[in-house]
Amino acid sequence: MIIVMKKDSTQQDVEKIVEVLKEHGLGANLSTGSQATIIGVLGDKTKLGDFDFELMEGVEKCVPIMHSYKLASHEMCPDGRVVEVGELKIGKKKLVIMAGPCAVENEEQIMHAALGVKAGGAQFLRGGAYKPRTSPYSFQGMEEEGLKLMRKAADATGLKVISEVVAHDQIDTAGKYCDMLQIGARNMQNFRLLREVGRSKIPVLLKRGISSTIEEWLDAAEYIMSEGNYNVVLCERGIRTFETATRNTLDVSAVPVVKERSCLPIIIDPSHAAGKARYVAALSLAGIAAGADGLIIEVHPNPKAAMSDAAQQLTPESFGQLTKKVGELARVVGREI
Amino acid sequence: MIIVMKKDSTQQDVEKIVEVLKEHGLGANLSTGSQATIIGVLGDKTKLGDFDFELMEGVEKCVPIMHSYKLASHEMCPDGRVVEVGELKIGKKKLVIMAGPCAVENEEQIMHAALGVKAGGAQFLRGGAYKPRTSPYSFQGMEEEGLKLMRKAADATGLKVISEVVAHDQIDTAGKYCDMLQIGARNMQNFRLLREVGRSKIPVLLKRGISSTIEEWLDAAEYIMSEGNYNVVLCERGIRTFETATRNTLDVSAVPVVKERSCLPIIIDPSHAAGKARYVAALSLAGIAAGADGLIIEVHPNPKAAMSDAAQQLTPESFGQLTKKVGELARVVGREI
Amino acid sequence: MIIVMKKDSTQQDVEKIVEVLKEHGLGANLSTGSQATIIGVLGDKTKLGDFDFELMEGVEKCVPIMHSYKLASHEMCPDGRVVEVGELKIGKKKLVIMAGPCAVENEEQIMHAALGVKAGGAQFLRGGAYKPRTSPYSFQGMEEEGLKLMRKAADATGLKVISEVVAHDQIDTAGKYCDMLQIGARNMQNFRLLREVGRSKIPVLLKRGISSTIEEWLDAAEYIMSEGNYNVVLCERGIRTFETATRNTLDVSAVPVVKERSCLPIIIDPSHAAGKARYVAALSLAGIAAGADGLIIEVHPNPKAAMSDAAQQLTPESFGQLTKKVGELARVVGREI
Amino acid sequence: MIIVMKKDSTQQDVEKIVEVLKEHGLGANLSTGSQATIIGVLGDKTKLGDFDFELMEGVEKCVPIMHSYKLASHEMCPDGRVVEVGELKIGKKKLVIMAGPCAVENEEQIMHAALGVKAGGAQFLRGGAYKPRTSPYSFQGMEEEGLKLMRKAADATGLKVISEVVAHDQIDTAGKYCDMLQIGARNMQNFRLLREVGRSKIPVLLKRGISSTIEEWLDAAEYIMSEGNYNVVLCERGIRTFETATRNTLDVSAVPVVKERSCLPIIIDPSHAAGKARYVAALSLAGIAAGADGLIIEVHPNPKAAMSDAAQQLTPESFGQLTKKVGELARVVGREI
Repeated sequence: MIIVMKKDSTQQDVEKIVEVLKEHGLGANLSTGSQATIIGVLGDKTKLGDFDFELMEGVEKCVPIMHSYKLASHEMCPDGRVVEVGELKIGKKKLVIMAGPCAVENEEQIMHAALGVKAGGAQFLRGGAYKPRTSPYSFQGMEEEGLKLMRKAADATGLKVISEVVAHDQIDTAGKYCDMLQIGARNMQNFRLLREVGRSKIPVLLKRGISSTIEEWLDAAEYIMSEGNYNVVLCERGIRTFETATRNTLDVSAVPVVKERSCLPIIIDPSHAAGKARYVAALSLAGIAAGADGLIIEVHPNPKAAMSDAAQQLTPESFGQLTKKVGELARVVGREI
Repeated sequence: MIIVMKKDSTQQDVEKIVEVLKEHGLGANLSTGSQATIIGVLGDKTKLGDFDFELMEGVEKCVPIMHSYKLASHEMCPDGRVVEVGELKIGKKKLVIMAGPCAVENEEQIMHAALGVKAGGAQFLRGGAYKPRTSPYSFQGMEEEGLKLMRKAADATGLKVISEVVAHDQIDTAGKYCDMLQIGARNMQNFRLLREVGRSKIPVLLKRGISSTIEEWLDAAEYIMSEGNYNVVLCERGIRTFETATRNTLDVSAVPVVKERSCLPIIIDPSHAAGKARYVAALSLAGIAAGADGLIIEVHPNPKAAMSDAAQQLTPESFGQLTKKVGELARVVGREI
Repeated sequence: MIIVMKKDSTQQDVEKIVEVLKEHGLGANLSTGSQATIIGVLGDKTKLGDFDFELMEGVEKCVPIMHSYKLASHEMCPDGRVVEVGELKIGKKKLVIMAGPCAVENEEQIMHAALGVKAGGAQFLRGGAYKPRTSPYSFQGMEEEGLKLMRKAADATGLKVISEVVAHDQIDTAGKYCDMLQIGARNMQNFRLLREVGRSKIPVLLKRGISSTIEEWLDAAEYIMSEGNYNVVLCERGIRTFETATRNTLDVSAVPVVKERSCLPIIIDPSHAAGKARYVAALSLAGIAAGADGLIIEVHPNPKAAMSDAAQQLTPESFGQLTKKVGELARVVGREI
Repeated sequence: MIIVMKKDSTQQDVEKIVEVLKEHGLGANLSTGSQATIIGVLGDKTKLGDFDFELMEGVEKCVPIMHSYKLASHEMCPDGRVVEVGELKIGKKKLVIMAGPCAVENEEQIMHAALGVKAGGAQFLRGGAYKPRTSPYSFQGMEEEGLKLMRKAADATGLKVISEVVAHDQIDTAGKYCDMLQIGARNMQNFRLLREVGRSKIPVLLKRGISSTIEEWLDAAEYIMSEGNYNVVLCERGIRTFETATRNTLDVSAVPVVKERSCLPIIIDPSHAAGKARYVAALSLAGIAAGADGLIIEVHPNPKAAMSDAAQQLTPESFGQLTKKVGELARVVGREI
């Protein structure tokens, strides 16, 4: 951390700060420039707790230098972490493809979806059983019954199951049916849920909050990892901006930024970013071109009849065409499908 | 809902839509303009579930007309709902003032804080016992022990207690010590928590998410109210924008907008919006001038030693000066302190 | 400026940077911490031009310490600059009130408006003659003819005239009729226009761009001032955020931030921020409570017939009621009307 | 346009609105639903000017149905407009590549840059001669002298010249040296400049404003086209969001949205979006994968010595590697380089 002093700060102001640092077992490096005195803090800043130097006399501002996440950082695993879900490896040359309907609706629908996405090249069947909905009057999901149907459909077709949990007491139940648990955008800072899913050791897909910075996202991953669960895959799904032409704005730059700062794999969710099925192909290709490790796409056997998020779900046919194109593009960027 | 057809849509496209509406027990009103055909949907739109007409042939877009919240709406209670916390009434002429430290740290601190805020005119003692922190390595709060200390300090000084819960299984414990529970910005769409706090019937202060629209906020209030708990007070605490001079951007316009659309009282949290104690007075006065029903302010007996959010906490002295000024301003807008 | 080195940077990397600094006549202060080496740059940073150290080997990031504006800064004039427009003084105890229609439409309209706003307590008549409109097919203003009508109406009623210029070759013409020129939000970074209005020496009202930071806004003011025109008043008129309930989000916090960082007066435009006449009163009061030096409000003699921005214009009657209330509130914060 | 009435609006309210519409030569289609009466406006809405129905009694809100741009719309030219710059065609199978330094600095620099970008596969040499800079104290460009040097370097290497104009009286001068003029992000709503560049008939690259919606951007293109200049190419260069890891957030979704709504070609500027050279390759590939018609990239013969925007400029070597990769990827999406 660096402490920048005000132009009109006094010698005494500076001395007091050095003293406080010393009390906390820290050193100080003084740099007296023509425009401002700057104090570099030496030692482990965590000793300071939340002590705020901006409240002390003569201080202009404090500038943090280091990020707060460690296990999720690039330094911790410079070659990138590979997350294993059974025999599947996420973060290696082969891209991971997750697909399925927004919500599980009934046995027939999820079985059709599983057959469709399997044929289209997916390794994971996705589908919501516990749905976080903006209005209390919207369909809230089939809960455990939905998970059972997903497991059955996945087993019949040779797919893995990924589904979202929205409360920590759902983890045990979901863990019985799912190979991977999803933490949704709205719960990215539900720290209790993060900790509990960390304790579960089940692989986790952590979506970025719609207004979360990449730093906050990596801090959220750190919550899970600090409980001993290193099987975390990040998912960029669009952030909230002023633009209304798409449901959210896909932050495709997050891919190279995450690759630089973190060791965790990152995949793209073009469906929630776009909010319209007709933009999904363009965003999927963009994400893989930018270096993403995979995709999670909404596919519904009959999108026009879907109970939620219908506008953004692909048909199995268009999904199959898309994965074919993704496969061709993958080779250009040194990946495969 | 209104369905706008594309310029090049066909008669058949329109007929199919009318048919689908009929199947759902709804009527259609056709308006064939020079530029586009528009279909007004007649009847109770909830019958449609999440059926999405934007996926049907020839549809340009769908425009929702009505909001989804009912109990939280202005129409439901045009004179405004008064929330009662014991003998205190929030939403009437008298403003409510909540104050206290960001986090409970120890008995001495919270007792000093309680004495200070009581002297300064507060009716509620606030303080965090379960702290949602961005990093897992930051201080996470004293939990039940902290709540006990708050209750003790509040009882000794004649204050009510308000504190945040961050998981649904904390509600029972917190309910033993608190007169009002706070749902923080990060949990505004933690729907499970909203439902459970709704079932508890304990009065709730619902903070706005940093990237939530006012409509989403009222939908979140609806979750609580739909479980039978009408004692909901809203709290505007700043939204996330591109501006970095303040921690968040206080959306003071939310006050007149909420007054127009909703029946619920709304208070202002200038401390989290500003992130700097030196802006708190200006924002407090702005909020009350705009018509807010009260304030929640961070006050610490010794801000420079505080363990979290130190930069934004007032001293008891400056808090007392502020409430005096708020009292004078309140009279101008027909309120009192 | 501070240069933060990467954890794995070498001694050589550091030496090269020190060398580059020396070449530019600058010194270096090294601070070797446990986590990172930090180089404080000593001397006048402007000698570096736009040289970017982030491109050099081993550099993690550069952190600027000082802002780039000087004449607009608080340090330059700690008691605050008073802008004089004829005998009127902006930035002293007495608030300035500017009011009038969005656009000048005809002689009768602007004369009625002038009478109305004069009666309501305004000192300035505002009105658009050169209108920046999103679509080329919208009404673009009466240009010089409109300015003549404004001057006439203002002279008849004892008001000053303020109007917007959108191109630098309009300044001479506008200067013949106006006492103050407005630079609109869309032109806040039209640097040519800023320079030319700086050369004109005519007092300027500089609106904040809808997505400009406060720092960029003060840099824009610096453009005007660097040409010798110190008569600059800032105007906060709302920023663009994700919230759509209001046309823009009034950043009321900008008032205390500008007061702290700059010497320039700042006024509030509640009309463009709100976009709805029914929110204008609340935002006006909020702005003055936060410490603003005045208001600029849209008032139309017959809002329902207005040719642009009709929804946000007050009637002369509601304007008069508002200024009365503003006057009462002003006294609470040590101001007067 | 659709006018939605309030629940408690009266028969008279509705009648008055119908009357006003009739006065303007427009028809009305009434749709009386169970929750609200809706009035569909029939006829050419431009007859209404800016008349605002939201001000009339009983009106809840007005919903626009049609966009305001016509010449820039997809309907006007469903196969897409091809912009010709000499013998070059933008918007066909072959991608356009523009490259060069942020600013022209001297003859040697621009000649080296031209050789480098030509070798790397560019058809256009870009370089700033009139620089819009945030601070008046930053380097402002070499102006006409810089344009001369660009023309010379381009002629020597067989490249076209593109450069930015920031004021309308620069168009004639710039037109003498440039094959295409750039309107920068800060001037996207400098309507006077748009009109004049429209009158000039010189091909235009129109960058998106950092906080402009896609609709506003197309309206800006309409300004140019409404003066008879149809040679407009759009350029997405990142929007302003809360994320600070990149200079701006590249809105890659803008590519499919523009392709759907407009007939104009669109290219990507990864350099200004990223703000860091190390992210440029990923964003370039993402843009082309999403369907963009080309790229404009900052390349400097010696980035570490560059006078502006140094951090985001590629070397000629890395530029050459990137275009090779872009060429491979282009084939996957049916394009070529």
